[in-house]
Amino acid sequence: MITTGGLGPTEDDITRKVAARALGRRLFLDESVLEEIRKRFLSFGLTMPERNSRQAMVIDGAKVLDNPNGTAPGLFIEHDGTAIALLPGPPREMRPMFENHVQPRLESKAGHLRVVRRVLRVAGMGESAVDERIAPIYTRYSNPQTTILFNRSEIEIQLTARGRTEAEAETLLDKVSAELESELGHSIFAFRGEQMEEIVGLRLSVGRYTIAVAESCTGGLIAERLTDVAGSSRYFIEGVVAYSNESKTRTIGVEPVLLLEHGAVSAPVAEAMAEGIRKRARTDFGLAVTGIAGPGGGSEEKPVGLVYIALASEVQTEHRKLMLPGDRQLIRWRASQAALDLLRRRLI
Amino acid sequence: MITTGGLGPTEDDITRKVAARALGRRLFLDESVLEEIRKRFLSFGLTMPERNSRQAMVIDGAKVLDNPNGTAPGLFIEHDGTAIALLPGPPREMRPMFENHVQPRLESKAGHLRVVRRVLRVAGMGESAVDERIAPIYTRYSNPQTTILFNRSEIEIQLTARGRTEAEAETLLDKVSAELESELGHSIFAFRGEQMEEIVGLRLSVGRYTIAVAESCTGGLIAERLTDVAGSSRYFIEGVVAYSNESKTRTIGVEPVLLLEHGAVSAPVAEAMAEGIRKRARTDFGLAVTGIAGPGGGSEEKPVGLVYIALASEVQTEHRKLMLPGDRQLIRWRASQAALDLLRRRLI
Repeated sequence: MITTGGLGPTEDDITRKVAARALGRRLFLDESVLEEIRKRFLSFGLTMPERNSRQAMVIDGAKVLDNPNGTAPGLFIEHDGTAIALLPGPPREMRPMFENHVQPRLESKAGHLRVVRRVLRVAGMGESAVDERIAPIYTRYSNPQTTILFNRSEIEIQLTARGRTEAEAETLLDKVSAELESELGHSIFAFRGEQMEEIVGLRLSVGRYTIAVAESCTGGLIAERLTDVAGSSRYFIEGVVAYSNESKTRTIGVEPVLLLEHGAVSAPVAEAMAEGIRKRARTDFGLAVTGIAGPGGGSEEKPVGLVYIALASEVQTEHRKLMLPGDRQLIRWRASQAALDLLRRRLI
Repeated sequence: MITTGGLGPTEDDITRKVAARALGRRLFLDESVLEEIRKRFLSFGLTMPERNSRQAMVIDGAKVLDNPNGTAPGLFIEHDGTAIALLPGPPREMRPMFENHVQPRLESKAGHLRVVRRVLRVAGMGESAVDERIAPIYTRYSNPQTTILFNRSEIEIQLTARGRTEAEAETLLDKVSAELESELGHSIFAFRGEQMEEIVGLRLSVGRYTIAVAESCTGGLIAERLTDVAGSSRYFIEGVVAYSNESKTRTIGVEPVLLLEHGAVSAPVAEAMAEGIRKRARTDFGLAVTGIAGPGGGSEEKPVGLVYIALASEVQTEHRKLMLPGDRQLIRWRASQAALDLLRRRLI
């Protein structure tokens, strides 16, 4: 039995108390755990608030599980042949604790069936189109099992294989992913669940390329995604969020006449933004987005969802015109995804 | 009974089929629903893929619920005195459908108890500190019930009140929120669940102020959050993500001597960034962040988590030094939150 959450310092964090009562075991204050929590606060220059001592309460007979990412330690109890793990709620605390302390303990009790999952991600195609293409493949297999998830503008293909060993399960996964790849080609951008920005970052790193970004409607989202990857300072040089026309001219060097003749949301302006930021930052690539994310600002001629993306390099500048469905958040995210995907395909 | 998800066009979207079987009802193709789905695709200039016709399958006797935000309509069935709603999975499709179609139908069946929830958000204090201050208040009340959630660097206080009318429940909520406010003061930044960027945007709008942002370690996150709010083009003028030293000098005008003497992660550089972006964009406020988000790049003197935020206006420039715990994503998010909170407090 695994619980997550309720190990915090507040009045309503009752997991320890409830579990102790259900098991008929005593709860006591563990001085060494208390010391660890105190030290953690000290390392940030803080004094431990009195009520955090509650997090040092331990169920009699439980093994205390270290939490290097937070103050709440976990507990592991074996009770009448049942393994019970009380884990903290925040994923970044819970996951490593599960992987380092709970999984090994459970594995030693488990049989010889291994389940391995692999996540493929697809960009630039609709869910229905993807399914129409690959259903003839995956419906032939019951192992691995296939699930298709549609998440914002990404399609996730989850393959779950069972085998007597991990290697056996991996072999089954290799076979089906190869068949899926032969059908979908470069539209599959990740084979191990990577994010688009990780894949793009990897390709920029490998090619020793640099990039700069000029954004209008995405408002910094592309820069934020690119720099979310550790080590991105190797290739990400500069980003400009040019929300006003003045800023497009002043900082990115878009000629006022282009804005006047074509409007800020247009192919010539997108291309000028890509070229302008590349020039300013002296990078290999310049990536730009301009569009109408809504809910306001749309017109008959230029409706909400109209987005231009452009990519400039030394040899050429190209653009794409997109009509993106969804609300403001979704249009922004889809625009960022399409722009990153344009760059990814250039780097193949 | 309410289900969400499994109404999509793919092979594994089986909610309609399973529900029909469980209820012993026939499933048939509804031509008028099919026509609606076709139209939706056409409005984006697309032909409906054949397999989306699956989404026009309707359970005999069910009321079809419009989905203006996606292709999958919902279904509402009354069966032997039980109300059954099949809703799509994506929240932006599911929520309006629930609110517009399911909730009114359920309300007409419900009694006279009304439950109203209110969410208060707190910035700039730790979870334990908040709880220590407010537990003496909220433990006196069983109605409203109080739950405290710690989410990244925000603390959410959820109050849930029950009353015979909504007005009665709201009165209970007003009383307890006023007591909480008298204890926590300006650390409560939202009383109706608003995001920090919405509150900051509202205050900028009301004061007719403009803002520009210069970011290093947050990589565009502050610009992205500010422009995530509809109508933000009124106050957000420009953002620069200056990841390299060259870009800090070239685009934001930070004197190279400051970078040399103090390093990029320092109070003088943070203040120079805030002043530089304010000058470039000619705005009322300039907000800047520089820091070490990790996992690499830290040193004994300047460890991962060290962040400087600065705010410049016509009359003064101020900065804060922060030591933020967490991984790269969390440090970036916490830095963005602290910077926006610095601006919010200036605007009070």
